[in-house]
Amino acid sequence: RGIRVGYTPDVLTDATAELSVALLLSACRRLPEAAEQVKSGGWTTWKPLWMCGYGLSDSTVGIIGLGRIGQAVARRLKPFGVKKFLYTGSGPKPESAAEFGAEFVPLMRLAEESDFVVVTCALTPATQGMCNKDFFSRMKKTSVFVNTSRGTVVNQEDLYEALSQGWIAAAGLDVTTPEPLPTDHPLLSLKNCVILPHIGSATYATRSTMAVLAANNLLSGLRGEPMPHELKL
Amino acid sequence: RGIRVGYTPDVLTDATAELSVALLLSACRRLPEAAEQVKSGGWTTWKPLWMCGYGLSDSTVGIIGLGRIGQAVARRLKPFGVKKFLYTGSGPKPESAAEFGAEFVPLMRLAEESDFVVVTCALTPATQGMCNKDFFSRMKKTSVFVNTSRGTVVNQEDLYEALSQGWIAAAGLDVTTPEPLPTDHPLLSLKNCVILPHIGSATYATRSTMAVLAANNLLSGLRGEPMPHELKL
Repeated sequence: RGIRVGYTPDVLTDATAELSVALLLSACRRLPEAAEQVKSGGWTTWKPLWMCGYGLSDSTVGIIGLGRIGQAVARRLKPFGVKKFLYTGSGPKPESAAEFGAEFVPLMRLAEESDFVVVTCALTPATQGMCNKDFFSRMKKTSVFVNTSRGTVVNQEDLYEALSQGWIAAAGLDVTTPEPLPTDHPLLSLKNCVILPHIGSATYATRSTMAVLAANNLLSGLRGEPMPHELKL
Repeated sequence: RGIRVGYTPDVLTDATAELSVALLLSACRRLPEAAEQVKSGGWTTWKPLWMCGYGLSDSTVGIIGLGRIGQAVARRLKPFGVKKFLYTGSGPKPESAAEFGAEFVPLMRLAEESDFVVVTCALTPATQGMCNKDFFSRMKKTSVFVNTSRGTVVNQEDLYEALSQGWIAAAGLDVTTPEPLPTDHPLLSLKNCVILPHIGSATYATRSTMAVLAANNLLSGLRGEPMPHELKL
C-alpha cells in the first residue's frame, strides 16, 4: 500500500521473438545434437539421412497467443516458406492476423494441424497446464513444440512422455518449472529437447534499454512525479 | 571420358539458407553455451547481463556472395529488424540486391561495417582463404561471423586467433577444413564458436527431393536419354 511499482513494457518484444525463432530452428534442425556429434567424433562420412531435421518450407505454424511477441515471431517466420499460420487464444484478432493470413482455430485443431507450435501467450488460469498429454497426443509425430512464454503453461511430465515416446519430433523451451530447472530433470536427458535458461530478452541492447527505463521509473517515483511506466492495479 | 555425370542443383537453397540463419542466431544469442549452463547448474538467479548476446535489431548484415542462397538468407533476416544489407562478390548484382536495398561494397568495407557477416559464396581461387587475419582484424569486436559455404574460404588459424583474442564476438561454421574436423581441433575448445557437421541441406524434405532427382538422372543416363540435370564441362 502506497508503494509505487514501475515496469518496462514492450522493450523485449524483438529480442524474445528473435530468441523464439532461434530456439525453433535449433530444435527442428537439431543444432545442439549436431554440434555434439562434431565434438564426440560422431561426424564421419556423408550419409543421406544423418542429422536430418524438419524445415519450415511449406509448413503450417500454429501460434498460441498472437500478441505482440506472437506477431513478431510470425513476421520473422513468414519468409522461411511457411505455407499457413494458425493461431489460438482468448478470441480472434482479425487485425493482428491479417498480416499473416493467420486463421483462428480452437486449441486442439491447432495441435492437430501444425508442424510447428509456438507458445507466446500470457500465463493465466486459462493457459496454466494447457499444453498437456491431451494436447501433445494430438500433435503430429514430425512436429516441433516451442515455449518462450511461461513454464507452467506446459505440463512437463506430459511433454517428457511426448518427446520420449515419439509423439512429437522435438521441443525447445526457454522457460521451465521451476527456474532454474534442477540439473537432474528428466527433460535434460533427451536429445530432442533444447532447454535454455530464460534468455528471451538477453541481448545487450534490450537489457540496456530495460535498465534505462527502470532507472527513469525510479527517478520519477522518487521525485513524486508521474512514472514513464507505472503499474496500475 | 564418356562417363556422364548428373547433379542436383537448386534443391538445397531453402534448407541451406534456413540453416545459415539458425547458425547465425545460435552464435549471436549464444544458444549452445546457454543450454550447457542449464545442464551444468550455471543457471542460478537472474543477472542483468548473464548470457547476453547481440541481436539483429538495427544491425548491418554483410553477405559475401549474393547468389541464390545469399539472397534467401537476406530474405529471412530482413524481418528481424536488420537496418542495412551490404554485399560483396565478383561484381554488383543490382537486380538481386534491389529486394533488400543491399549495397555492393569492397570486402574490407563489408568487414568493417557489418555486425553480422554471412559467407555464402562459391569456393574459387579468388575466395579461397579470403577470410583471414586481415579480414577478421577489421571486423567489429561485437560482430558475428557465419560460414555455410566451403571450409577453405576461411583461414581457420586466423579465425581461432580472432575468436580467442576477442577481435570478434562469435562464429558459426557449418563447413570446416577438413571434414570431419578432428575432435581435438582448437576451434572446438572455444565457447564462442558453434560448429556443425555440414548439415546445410539436412532436412528430410530436401534429401528426399535430392534422391528423386539423382535417381531420375541415373535412369535417364542408363536409357541413353537426356538427363534432367547433367554436368556439362
